[in-house]
Amino acid sequence: MTAPGADTQHGIRRRNLARVLGAVAADGPVSRAGVAARVGLTRAAVGTLVDALLRAGLLVETGPAATGGRGRPGSELAVSDTGPAGIGAEIGVGNLAVCAVDLRGRIRARAAADVADRGSEPGPVLRRLAGMIAEVTDRIAALDLRPAGLTVAVPGLVARGTTTVVHAPNLGWRNVDPAPVLRALTAVPEPLTVENEANLGALAELRLGGGPDGSGAPPPDFLHVSAEAGIGAAVVVDGQLLRGARGFAGELGHVPVYPGGRPCGCGARGCLEQYAGEAAVLRAAGLDPGRAAAGHPGPRARVELLAHRAAAGNPATLAALRDAGTALGIALAGAVHLLDPEAVLLGGALARLAPWLLPSLERELTARTALAPYAGTAPRIRVAAARCGADGPLLGAAHAALRAVLDDPLGRSWTPAVSRQLSGE
Amino acid sequence: MTAPGADTQHGIRRRNLARVLGAVAADGPVSRAGVAARVGLTRAAVGTLVDALLRAGLLVETGPAATGGRGRPGSELAVSDTGPAGIGAEIGVGNLAVCAVDLRGRIRARAAADVADRGSEPGPVLRRLAGMIAEVTDRIAALDLRPAGLTVAVPGLVARGTTTVVHAPNLGWRNVDPAPVLRALTAVPEPLTVENEANLGALAELRLGGGPDGSGAPPPDFLHVSAEAGIGAAVVVDGQLLRGARGFAGELGHVPVYPGGRPCGCGARGCLEQYAGEAAVLRAAGLDPGRAAAGHPGPRARVELLAHRAAAGNPATLAALRDAGTALGIALAGAVHLLDPEAVLLGGALARLAPWLLPSLERELTARTALAPYAGTAPRIRVAAARCGADGPLLGAAHAALRAVLDDPLGRSWTPAVSRQLSGE
Repeated sequence: MTAPGADTQHGIRRRNLARVLGAVAADGPVSRAGVAARVGLTRAAVGTLVDALLRAGLLVETGPAATGGRGRPGSELAVSDTGPAGIGAEIGVGNLAVCAVDLRGRIRARAAADVADRGSEPGPVLRRLAGMIAEVTDRIAALDLRPAGLTVAVPGLVARGTTTVVHAPNLGWRNVDPAPVLRALTAVPEPLTVENEANLGALAELRLGGGPDGSGAPPPDFLHVSAEAGIGAAVVVDGQLLRGARGFAGELGHVPVYPGGRPCGCGARGCLEQYAGEAAVLRAAGLDPGRAAAGHPGPRARVELLAHRAAAGNPATLAALRDAGTALGIALAGAVHLLDPEAVLLGGALARLAPWLLPSLERELTARTALAPYAGTAPRIRVAAARCGADGPLLGAAHAALRAVLDDPLGRSWTPAVSRQLSGE
Repeated sequence: MTAPGADTQHGIRRRNLARVLGAVAADGPVSRAGVAARVGLTRAAVGTLVDALLRAGLLVETGPAATGGRGRPGSELAVSDTGPAGIGAEIGVGNLAVCAVDLRGRIRARAAADVADRGSEPGPVLRRLAGMIAEVTDRIAALDLRPAGLTVAVPGLVARGTTTVVHAPNLGWRNVDPAPVLRALTAVPEPLTVENEANLGALAELRLGGGPDGSGAPPPDFLHVSAEAGIGAAVVVDGQLLRGARGFAGELGHVPVYPGGRPCGCGARGCLEQYAGEAAVLRAAGLDPGRAAAGHPGPRARVELLAHRAAAGNPATLAALRDAGTALGIALAGAVHLLDPEAVLLGGALARLAPWLLPSLERELTARTALAPYAGTAPRIRVAAARCGADGPLLGAAHAALRAVLDDPLGRSWTPAVSRQLSGE
C-alpha cells in the first residue's frame, strides 16, 4: 500500500503531465520551451510529456509561432477543443440548467428550464434534470466531445466527501442523494459530484473571473457571497475552497447580526438571512413574499422586480436594500476580521442588486474594519459584484467536472485509445 | 530557474528525508520497516535515507526492538535528543519568556521574567529578551544542543511574510521589527520569524495537544481562541494555520457582537473585546482595570484574581464571566457558521476561566448552531480548554523554530559535519 503523498514514479509522471496540461490550458498557445520554463522541467522531459498528451488528443499543435525573425520557428501548443468535456448541472430554486464546457473553457452546449421545484419531491426534478443532461451530451457528441464527469450545483449543504444534500431548505430537501438517480438515467462517466452552489460560483470566479489579460481576476483569498432564496458564501483561501470539517463552511446567512433580533427558521434570532434574505427584503420593500413568488416565479424574476423598483426610485425598496446592505456589512465585518480576505465578491442576486446594496454595505464594513492596525498599512477591503453573476454556479460545476482530467490527464477513459478499447472498437 | 513545485531529484530526496524524519519524530521509536510502511517507500529506499539521517546525528538507534519471539530483532530508530534545538521566545504583556525544545519535543532550558512593557519602548524590551535568549543558548550548548532557529511570539498583528509587528495595542507597539535587534544581539542562526501568539498557541496544540496515546489531540479543523489583554484567535484548517491575505486573520476580538453597543478603541461599536476582554470583565466584576493592573502586575495575576473571586462565589464576578461567555458564544456562532470547525479550544486566560465562561458560552453557541441541517446529522461543536494553557505560545514558538529542520533535514548548518566546517574545526 502506498501513502498518497509518496513520490512514486507513477505519481511523479501523473503530476508532471498535469502540470504541462495545466500550463498550456492557462497560457496557451505556448511553445514547448515556454511550457518548460513555466513548469520547471527540462525541455527534453517536457517534450516526452507533450508527445503523450498529443497522442491522447488532449493537446494540439497550432502551427509555427511568430518568432520575430530569429531562430527556427517552433510549433505552438494549445489544449484541444475536442475530447473531454465537463458537464455542469444546476438545481436552482425554480430553475434547472445544464451545460458542457471543453478543455479550452468554452461552453459548447447548454439547456435550461423553469420548474416549480420548491417543496416538490426530488424524484421528478432529478428525472427532468437527467433528460436535460442526456440532451446536452447527445449534442456534444456531434462536436467530437465526450463527457468526462458531472458536477451538480445545489442550493444547500452537502456533507463533505459525499453526494448527499443534507439540507436544502429552499427546495425542501433533506438528506437527498441525487447521484443514484443521475447514474441510472444518464451515461455520464464518473466522477459524479454534488456541490454547494456558492462554492461552485467561487470556482467559476477563480477560473473565469479575469479579463483576457488576467485583469479583474479574483485574488487567491476572497469571500464569494451568493444569494438566491437564501444567503450562502464560499471561503477561498490560497485559491482553494475552505470546506469545513463537515463540509458546511460558508453559512453566512446564519451569522448573527442583531443577536436579540428577528426569529429565524433555524431557531436562533437575528441571523443575517432575516435582514438580507430574499423574503426579508421583499417584505421590507412592502411586497408580500408569497404573492411576489406567485406573480414572479423563479428567483430571477423577483430579483428583477426589486431591481426595477429600486431603479425607479421606489423609497420602500431603496430603504429595504439599504438596510440589507447594512446587515451584510455587519456580517461581513466579522468575516473579514476572522479571515482577512483580499476581496469580497457579491454573486447571484446580490450581483444584480449591488448598485443599491453597496453604499450602505461598504459604509458599515469600512467603519468596522478601519481598525487602527489597518489604517495606512494595508489597502481597504475590495467589495465588488462577481463577474460571472448568476451563471457562476453552472459554469463552476462544468469546470469542476473537468478537474479529474486536468489532475490525471492520461488516467481515465476520456483518451480516445482507452475509450475505444472500453467500447470494443 | 526551477518552479517550487517541480519534482527535481533534489526536491524529491529532500521531501523523502523530511517524511522519514517526521515519521520517526511522530511515532518513534520505530523500526525501519515501520517507517517504510508509514511513508509509502520501499525498505531499501528508507534504509538509505535513514543512514543519511543517522550520519547527520538527527536519528539515533535505540537498540533491538521487542519482536515477540519471531524473526531477527530489528534495531529501532528515534530522533536525537542532541543536535538542533528550536528557540522560542514570547513577548507578553507584562512578561518575557524563552525556551529551547529538542527534536523529541522536550523543553531543555527555560527563562522567564516579569517586565513592565506596556507602553514601553521596544528597544529595552528586546535587549532584555536578547539577554535571555543568550542565557538559554549557553545552557543548551552544555547539553550538546545547537539553536536551529528562533521564533518570537507577540500579542499583535504581524504582516504576512515579514517580521514586522504592524500593531500590538497592548504593548503600544506599531510597525516594530524585532528581527534586526535580535540578530545583532544573539547568535541564533536563521530562520528568525515573528508570529502572532494565538497562531503559535494553536501550533502548540497541534504538536503537543494529545495524550501519550494521541487522545485529546486537536482535530485538523479547529479554532483556537486566546486572550491575555486582548482577544485573538487562530484558524486551523486541515492542520494548517489560515493566515489571511495580509496575515491578519483571526481577529475575533473585533467581530461585532452587539452592533450598536459599546464603543471600541478600534473606532467601531459592539466588538467582542468590549464584552469579553480583560478590561471589560474586570470592570463588569466591579474592579477598576487600572487599579487591578497596578495591584496585580502581569496578566496572569489579574486572571488569578478573577478566578479566585469566581471560585469564592462573588456574584459580580460570576455575572461578569457569564456575560463574557454569552458574548463569546455570539462571536463564535458566527465563526462556526463561516468555518465549520470540529472544535473550539480556549487558550490563555480563557483556559483558566473556562469553568465560569463555558456554561453561558455553550448555551449561546448551541442555540445559534442547532440549525436544522445539523440536527441529528453531525455532532455538536466541541468547546474545551486548550491543553497547553498559558504555555501554548512559547511552546508553539519553539516548535515553529524547529520546522526548518523537519522540512529540510540535511539542508542547513545544524548537522554536525556542516557546522564543524562552518566554524573551521
